Amino acid sequence: MPQVLEPRKRFVLRALQATMLEGLAGTSPPPALESESALDAYLRDCRALTLRELGRIVPTSQRYASILYDLALEYPQRASKALRPALCMATCRALGGPLQGVLRSAAVLELYHSAFLIHDDVEDGSELRRDRPTLHVTHGVPIAVNVGDAMLALALEPLLDNMTRLGLGKALRILRVVARMARESAEGQALELDWVRTRRWDLGDADYLRMVHKKTGWYTFVAPVVIGGIVAGAGERELAALRRFAALLGLAFQIQDDVLNLVAERAAYGKEIAGDLWEGKHTLILMHAFRAARPSERARMAAILEKARPGTTRGRTPRKSARDVDYLLRMIHRHDSIAHARRIAREYARRAATALERADWLPPSVHREFLADLVAFVVERDR
Amino acid sequence: MPQVLEPRKRFVLRALQATMLEGLAGTSPPPALESESALDAYLRDCRALTLRELGRIVPTSQRYASILYDLALEYPQRASKALRPALCMATCRALGGPLQGVLRSAAVLELYHSAFLIHDDVEDGSELRRDRPTLHVTHGVPIAVNVGDAMLALALEPLLDNMTRLGLGKALRILRVVARMARESAEGQALELDWVRTRRWDLGDADYLRMVHKKTGWYTFVAPVVIGGIVAGAGERELAALRRFAALLGLAFQIQDDVLNLVAERAAYGKEIAGDLWEGKHTLILMHAFRAARPSERARMAAILEKARPGTTRGRTPRKSARDVDYLLRMIHRHDSIAHARRIAREYARRAATALERADWLPPSVHREFLADLVAFVVERDR
Repeated sequence: MPQVLEPRKRFVLRALQATMLEGLAGTSPPPALESESALDAYLRDCRALTLRELGRIVPTSQRYASILYDLALEYPQRASKALRPALCMATCRALGGPLQGVLRSAAVLELYHSAFLIHDDVEDGSELRRDRPTLHVTHGVPIAVNVGDAMLALALEPLLDNMTRLGLGKALRILRVVARMARESAEGQALELDWVRTRRWDLGDADYLRMVHKKTGWYTFVAPVVIGGIVAGAGERELAALRRFAALLGLAFQIQDDVLNLVAERAAYGKEIAGDLWEGKHTLILMHAFRAARPSERARMAAILEKARPGTTRGRTPRKSARDVDYLLRMIHRHDSIAHARRIAREYARRAATALERADWLPPSVHREFLADLVAFVVERDR
Repeated sequence: MPQVLEPRKRFVLRALQATMLEGLAGTSPPPALESESALDAYLRDCRALTLRELGRIVPTSQRYASILYDLALEYPQRASKALRPALCMATCRALGGPLQGVLRSAAVLELYHSAFLIHDDVEDGSELRRDRPTLHVTHGVPIAVNVGDAMLALALEPLLDNMTRLGLGKALRILRVVARMARESAEGQALELDWVRTRRWDLGDADYLRMVHKKTGWYTFVAPVVIGGIVAGAGERELAALRRFAALLGLAFQIQDDVLNLVAERAAYGKEIAGDLWEGKHTLILMHAFRAARPSERARMAAILEKARPGTTRGRTPRKSARDVDYLLRMIHRHDSIAHARRIAREYARRAATALERADWLPPSVHREFLADLVAFVVERDR
C-alpha cells in the first residue's frame, strides 16, 4: 500500500508517537528529538516503578507461578510504555500528591489493562501483542481467559490496602472509580462486539466516539487521571476538569492511533500497516468512508468486511485478499476519510490542551510538563 | 452404560439430590419426600430473593440491555437452585443476622458464580448449561467472555454499598473474602487447566481435593458461609468453625457430584450420564481408577483421555467413541473407584455434620435446619 506511506522525514516523530500508544515492539527506541526525550524518560521511570509494584502485588507462590502468576506478569513485562500508570502518577504528583501513595493504584491500572488485553486478544482472535504471540496463542484460550480472571481478582486487595495507606475516603472513591471503569470498558466492548456480530458499518462519528471513550478512553485516560487526582486530594472542581481533559485527550489519542495504523511505516509503528483494515476494525476512518461511499461501493466494502483476515481460525469464512484491503484503502482516500479523522483528533487535542492550560491550580512541574507533552504529540502529529 | 445405573427406587432421592447441585434442567421437580421439601422450599425462597436483588444490581440501561445486561441475567434465570446465596442467607439468619443486610452480598455471590460459569463453559468448550446452549454457543466466545467480565465488574459496587448498610468493618471484611474467593477460584482453575494441558492423570486424592476445594469449594461453600457469618457479626472462633464446616461440606458435595454423574439416571440428574467421562474431566473417581490400573490399562486410558468428546470443535483431535467411554467405565468398576469416592465423600460429610453439631452457638431454627439438611443429603446418599 505505498500510496498511503508518508515521507521519510516524519519517521522520528511517528516513531516516538507510536511508543506513546500501545504495541511498540521490542525494538530499540529511535533517536529522540530533544523535546520528546523528557517524555520518554518520564515514561521509562514510571514503568520501572510500576513493574516493581506489580511484582509485589502478584503472588510469588511456587505452585502457581508457572501455571498462573508468571503468565499474569507476561504482558506488562513485554516492551510497552505503561501509559496508564504514568498518567496516574503524573497527575498525582502534578497536584503535589505523594508518589508512594499513588503507586499501588497506578500498578492496579496496569494490571486491569493487561487483563483486558488478554481477554480482548481472545475476543478479537489477535495473534500478536507487542510483537510476540498472544497469550491464548502460546497457552490456549482456556488458560488465557483464566489468567485474565486471576488478574482481575488480584486487583481488589491492593485497592483495599489503600484504606490504611490513604485513608478510608480516598480508598473508597478510588474503588468506585475502578468499579465504574470496569463497567465502562465492558459496555464499550459490548458495543463494538455487537457491531462485529451484526456487521454494522452504517454508524456515525458519535457512535464511534461513544464506543471508544467507553471501551478504551475511560480506563486509559479518565480513570488514571481521576485516581491520581483523588490520591493528591483534589477537590470536585479539579477532578471534573481533570476528567474532561482526560476524556478529550483519550479521544484524540485513539483516533490518531487509527490514523497511524494507515499511514505509519512498519519499522516505526511496530504494528502491521493497515492491520486495522485486514482485521476489519471499526475505526472512525473506515466508518466515514463507508458512510461517504456510493451504494455500490458500500455493498462491495460490506462484502469485503464480512471476510476474515487470513490466518485466523474462523471456520469457512472467506478470507480477505490484498486486493480487498487495497479497495478499502482506495475508498478511504477517495472520500478523504483520513483527513476527516485527523481534523477530529486535532480538534479534541486542542480542546484537551485548552483544558490543561486553564488548570491554573496545577503549578509548573515536570509532571504537568509530561501531561502537556502528551497533548503536544497529538497536535504536532497533524501540524 | 446400563451396568452403572442404580435401581429405580432411588429415583426420588437422586432427583432431589441433583437439584441441590448445579444443572437441574427446566423439568418440573419430582414429588418430594417430606424430609426434603423444607429444604427445597428454603432454596426456592432464597432464589426468588436473589433474582429480585440481581435485578437491582444489574443496570437496566436500554442501550446495553440486549447486548450485555440481559445476557448477564440469563444463567441466573435458567432453572437452578442458587445454592450459594441460600447458604449465605441461611448462615446469617441462623446466627440471628438480618435478611436485608445479607441480601446484597448473597446476590453478588450468584453474580460471581454465573460469571465463573460463563468463562468455565468457554474454557471447557461446554455446549450445554442448565439444559440449554451455553452463552458462547448462542452468542459466540467474544461476547461470552465480555459478559463474564461485565458481571465481575458489576460485583464491586454492591459490595461498596455494604459500607453504608453494614458499616465499614463488615463491608471491608466481606470485600477481603470476595477478593480471596476470586483468587482461590482462579488458582483452582489453573491447576485443573494445567492437568488438561499437560494430560496429567497420575495424581493423588490430595491433588484432587486441593483443586476442587480452591476451584469450587471456596466460592460455593466457604465464602457464602463466612460472609453470612460476617454480616451476622460472628466472632473469629465462630467464623473459623463455619469455614471448616463449609470446606468439609464442599468436598463432600463435589465428590458426590462426580459419583452422581456416573450412577444417576438422566431424567433425575438433568445432565448427561457419564458426561464427565466423555468430557475427560479430572474426577476423584477417574484419577483413582487411573492410579489403580495396570500399566497397559493406564496406557489405554491415557490414549482415550487424549481424545476429544464428539461434537466439540477441537481441530483434528480424534474423538472418543462409546467403546472408549465404556472402557473407562470398566476400569472404574474393576478398581472399585466409585466406592472409593463414596467413602471419601461420606467421611467429609460426617465431619461436616460433626462440625455443625458442635456449633452450639447456632440455636435451633429453620436456617440451621437447612444447613443440617444439606449435610444429610450427602450422608443419606451413601447410606
